[in-house]
Amino acid sequence: MNNFQQWGETLRLLVELAGTTAFALSGVLEGARKRLDAVGICVVGFLAAFGGGTLRDLLLDQRPFFWVRHVEMLWGVLLICALSMLFLRSHHFEATQKHIAVPDALGLGLFAASGVHQALAADMPALVVVLMGVITGVFGGVLRDIVCNEIPTTLRDHQPYAVCAFAGGWAYLGVWELGAPGWAAMLTCLGVTAGLRGLALWRKWQLPVWLA
Amino acid sequence: MNNFQQWGETLRLLVELAGTTAFALSGVLEGARKRLDAVGICVVGFLAAFGGGTLRDLLLDQRPFFWVRHVEMLWGVLLICALSMLFLRSHHFEATQKHIAVPDALGLGLFAASGVHQALAADMPALVVVLMGVITGVFGGVLRDIVCNEIPTTLRDHQPYAVCAFAGGWAYLGVWELGAPGWAAMLTCLGVTAGLRGLALWRKWQLPVWLA
Amino acid sequence: MNNFQQWGETLRLLVELAGTTAFALSGVLEGARKRLDAVGICVVGFLAAFGGGTLRDLLLDQRPFFWVRHVEMLWGVLLICALSMLFLRSHHFEATQKHIAVPDALGLGLFAASGVHQALAADMPALVVVLMGVITGVFGGVLRDIVCNEIPTTLRDHQPYAVCAFAGGWAYLGVWELGAPGWAAMLTCLGVTAGLRGLALWRKWQLPVWLA
Repeated sequence: MNNFQQWGETLRLLVELAGTTAFALSGVLEGARKRLDAVGICVVGFLAAFGGGTLRDLLLDQRPFFWVRHVEMLWGVLLICALSMLFLRSHHFEATQKHIAVPDALGLGLFAASGVHQALAADMPALVVVLMGVITGVFGGVLRDIVCNEIPTTLRDHQPYAVCAFAGGWAYLGVWELGAPGWAAMLTCLGVTAGLRGLALWRKWQLPVWLA
Repeated sequence: MNNFQQWGETLRLLVELAGTTAFALSGVLEGARKRLDAVGICVVGFLAAFGGGTLRDLLLDQRPFFWVRHVEMLWGVLLICALSMLFLRSHHFEATQKHIAVPDALGLGLFAASGVHQALAADMPALVVVLMGVITGVFGGVLRDIVCNEIPTTLRDHQPYAVCAFAGGWAYLGVWELGAPGWAAMLTCLGVTAGLRGLALWRKWQLPVWLA
Repeated sequence: MNNFQQWGETLRLLVELAGTTAFALSGVLEGARKRLDAVGICVVGFLAAFGGGTLRDLLLDQRPFFWVRHVEMLWGVLLICALSMLFLRSHHFEATQKHIAVPDALGLGLFAASGVHQALAADMPALVVVLMGVITGVFGGVLRDIVCNEIPTTLRDHQPYAVCAFAGGWAYLGVWELGAPGWAAMLTCLGVTAGLRGLALWRKWQLPVWLA
């Protein structure tokens, strides 16, 4: 079991890095599309990559923040921003949502899992635990869009996004209540969230709209 | 007196619920008007209902948050969002500001009172106490409008709104300084705030504008 | 040395007041340009003046907030808002960015220095210290622009702004590592930040843009 445990830990770290990278990239692409300058692009990249986790830590009152404990993540995102700007400039890369859909879905799933995990550790009630997963997964993108003066895509594009993290959070809780180890619950949450998001994009699921 | 005390407590809970309901509804209506999807509407409803109180607790460093202590409020707002979306869909309801003016004014008054109350309990200086009341009353609506990519109505519609909560906060402090019990101060704050807001809407009071 | 120390302390207080004043003015001017009402203008002034320092205290978990310890600053900003609105109204003053460039650059430098100072005192790693300086210097203006429904000028106007604070933060750390007293490090940070910003405006430096 110890082996599995460790494998789970390594997996978590890997996907966390992938998620942060994906969100940073989504911020850079959004900033570039809005014709921000180099500094603005870095800022949007940082907000997208660290917004969700920082709000999670703030709401759960957990200090120091995860990016204070792992400063190398700050350096990494700075590097990602610099490299992707160089790449954008030299390749006349046409940034589209499609390019970031896969890592974005993975990132959503992982950040949701980490939010649920931390809220559980802080002994929150079930609904708060799940909402904390949703907030952690979604807030980085919301912040990115607010700073770029857009209605957040999450709220507007009519494809399930936050609701995938909501389902994933309940799946985490369900598996956890059954007595499964933490890494299994995390994997379930990641699988359900990213899987639903993938299905939603593939089958072009639409959420209902209201006209008032 | 004990009877009065209890009556005050019950009143406070009732109006707090009414205020949360009113702000949740205002978020749902705003989201529907912006043609957000079902999830987006719920998010805006939650932000409007819980934004002010969460910022109050965050600024005053009070943990756990009120919606962690009273999870049933989260479930309630979820239910309100679902029901009002069903209603909007089936009744082709034309959402107008007028429909929410009364509960909105009550909500503003109550949240202002609760902000002042908590800031007083945390031993803040007078001006901070009053501003905390204003922030608690106003921030939910501000967040709702920012997420919907609008200049917050509070700042723009030229009818007194925040300033009513400002007056109500000073009224609370005044009554409190005179040695009146807490529920009397709260009622005064609620009455002054909601009353001024009602008068402002009824008499169409306008705040001065500046052209620069 | 004690004399110098005290001189540094007084200087810090003076520039801090100047910085807060400058940011409050920038908020009032922005609010007036957006045709907000009197209350909206005050709100934007407060957000610009206190946003950066409040986020700094929140992220570093420092309570009470600086505007709770120094309530007279709240009264001061209220007074500034009232006076500048009277002035705007009576003088038909055409608000331009140029009028606030000098105090704004000073404010950026000082708030950056104060952010770096507090983060150092809280034992943060180097990159976090510098970023905290940038956040403290920049966030007030970002909040001002978000509330006014604009992409923050910092991100968009292609003239170095946040990056000046970034350089200033590293300069602070460098001087500090060399064993210089705190006031010297603060002055260096202020000088580098405000100097670079001034140079950038004077020589019309442009940051590169990306088209995606």
